[in-house]
Amino acid sequence: MSVTAPQGFTAAGIAAGIKSSGQPDLALVVNQGPRLAAAGVFTSNRVKAAPVLWSEQVLKGGQVSAVVLNSGGANACTGPRGFQDTHATAERAAEALGHNAGEIAVASTGLIGELLPMDKLLPGVDTAVAALSEHGGEKAALAIKTTDTVHKTAVAQRDGWSVGGMAKGAGMLAPGLATMLVVLTTDADLDSSALDRALRAATRVTFDRVDSDGCMSTNDTVLLLASGASGTTPAEDEFTAAVREVCADLARQLIGDAEGASKDIRIEVVNAASEDEAVTVGRVIARNNLFKCAVHGEDPNWGRVLSAIGTTDAAFEPDRLNVAINGVWVCKNGSVGEDRTLVDMRYREVVITADLAAGDASAEIWTNDLTADYVHENSAYSS
Amino acid sequence: MSVTAPQGFTAAGIAAGIKSSGQPDLALVVNQGPRLAAAGVFTSNRVKAAPVLWSEQVLKGGQVSAVVLNSGGANACTGPRGFQDTHATAERAAEALGHNAGEIAVASTGLIGELLPMDKLLPGVDTAVAALSEHGGEKAALAIKTTDTVHKTAVAQRDGWSVGGMAKGAGMLAPGLATMLVVLTTDADLDSSALDRALRAATRVTFDRVDSDGCMSTNDTVLLLASGASGTTPAEDEFTAAVREVCADLARQLIGDAEGASKDIRIEVVNAASEDEAVTVGRVIARNNLFKCAVHGEDPNWGRVLSAIGTTDAAFEPDRLNVAINGVWVCKNGSVGEDRTLVDMRYREVVITADLAAGDASAEIWTNDLTADYVHENSAYSS
Repeated sequence: MSVTAPQGFTAAGIAAGIKSSGQPDLALVVNQGPRLAAAGVFTSNRVKAAPVLWSEQVLKGGQVSAVVLNSGGANACTGPRGFQDTHATAERAAEALGHNAGEIAVASTGLIGELLPMDKLLPGVDTAVAALSEHGGEKAALAIKTTDTVHKTAVAQRDGWSVGGMAKGAGMLAPGLATMLVVLTTDADLDSSALDRALRAATRVTFDRVDSDGCMSTNDTVLLLASGASGTTPAEDEFTAAVREVCADLARQLIGDAEGASKDIRIEVVNAASEDEAVTVGRVIARNNLFKCAVHGEDPNWGRVLSAIGTTDAAFEPDRLNVAINGVWVCKNGSVGEDRTLVDMRYREVVITADLAAGDASAEIWTNDLTADYVHENSAYSS
Repeated sequence: MSVTAPQGFTAAGIAAGIKSSGQPDLALVVNQGPRLAAAGVFTSNRVKAAPVLWSEQVLKGGQVSAVVLNSGGANACTGPRGFQDTHATAERAAEALGHNAGEIAVASTGLIGELLPMDKLLPGVDTAVAALSEHGGEKAALAIKTTDTVHKTAVAQRDGWSVGGMAKGAGMLAPGLATMLVVLTTDADLDSSALDRALRAATRVTFDRVDSDGCMSTNDTVLLLASGASGTTPAEDEFTAAVREVCADLARQLIGDAEGASKDIRIEVVNAASEDEAVTVGRVIARNNLFKCAVHGEDPNWGRVLSAIGTTDAAFEPDRLNVAINGVWVCKNGSVGEDRTLVDMRYREVVITADLAAGDASAEIWTNDLTADYVHENSAYSS
């Protein structure tokens, strides 16, 4: 059901020929109204792809009538010509839909530094418009895949309204988001500022807490579109909870499909002096290659967790740190704790608990192990 | 010649039985005077091994008569008992040498979180004292190896005086140093404050600019000992240059022997607004796993360099960035530059030049590629 689960949306996913494989590579999501309210968050990378620069401008108006997404090319580091191509994409969709180009967002993913094949992309936009359907959500989710092995969708159903979403992402998941394209839709009747608050609150504790390989994309885009078609205006906290539920579901799917990963690692940092410090510590553990290799080898090597924590300036005393791996406190008071042979790491999900003994704040970061398959996927081909 | 190249030093390297393999695992370097001046720099990790905590105290006195180094165990995260073991090691060496324990530095490397086998280490200290020789430098360098495939030594010979050194390190090379143990010796006649200035100036642009895998050790130690035996007091800039020469030589050897690496990558950041910003940008490129995989695959993927630079707050404009790979400017003004097929990446050394077009400062960072062998070495065994 994906982005077409809420009322008031149509979508399509088609093969425009951008990918040489002939796989689907162009998605379109259209808000049929009556409202066109929208909010967005984008990569914090200072090197931003052309579609990000374009869509940031579009979102300033608080209205989005449609989103064109393509895989097969990031349109990043492509200079003024790349920006013109994004603009032309929005214009073509506007023409075919009878919309205003200034309300059409664009998102791209794929190789950096190459121009998009506009001779294929623009006719593809027409094809996608012709294929729009109230049941097109799954096809749209399929068309934004790159190295994703599965497409990702989620829905939160509430009384009279719902939130739906689709996501792609596999390789560059990182803070400030990742090569992650996400479109969320809702038929709740809310204005763009309410959407913005809900979206920021939800992404802060979901996509922003996913750090697969520490690399930040030039293209990350998360959009939330509201059609108002349900005629219902939910309470803000209730709506935020539904958006967060969909984002958390999609974020978990992204981690589960990260390039080459064999383990999904949940890092819980507890008893930190502040939530920010808990996030900092979680992230530094998530990015430690030696730790990630140890998890891959099912080695409960807590020394690598401690040496990662030690590189931060978070509040802690080295001789009060405790670390549990899958519930076994292998490190107590900065030194040897329970018997490490008690740790069972055979399953895909691994939980690391780092107790800083410095306060009562906590945070959770999701990451993956580092594997030879990751190296292979990212060295054998340009991506 | 290693640490015994300068006059006034003896050294030994023996197998004490700390390593189950029976390989050499205990080294001793003794300053025979007449001076006992010394300086040291240590890991900036807040989780410090017992020998680091001990040696930091010793160095405060500015005098070091001997250094005991062991491989086969880091003595890190070992609590009060670990610190007692380091103390006992210094005491045993003091007794056998007739020195003061407060002037004996200790350094350890190996697995974190396990106590050292003191029943083997302490008799080993006696054996090492008995084996001390003016020609013992090579044996000492061999005894500090862990996953190093070769031992590392260097000498800078000057008129009437010299600087010698040995190093170990392979896996965790990183800023603020690494699981890197380095002992430098000189027969120049200098006091500890002159040594300290020279050592800090040299390590700042050598060991501190090596970032193999972004992971910082709990045990990094670099010591510089002066015997004064040459009776010569060189000019400070001349001495600093000699120390820097030895450090640069050893740092290059460390990168060349990094775990699992198939490429040595020199990252030159030029036209930065400040040297600090050049270092920051160099480091963020050096730590980008996608970039490191691309180099492994001999893929001149400059988009990954740009997306790494974009995560910093250094001064630059995205559309003025230029990137060369092995001299070919594949990215000009933030977009496609020269033909990437012109880049030849077959050789072990790869040079990345990142031009920030924001000033006239520059810096060089050395790193390695990320390989399946790295993953294997760090997942198949605890280390």
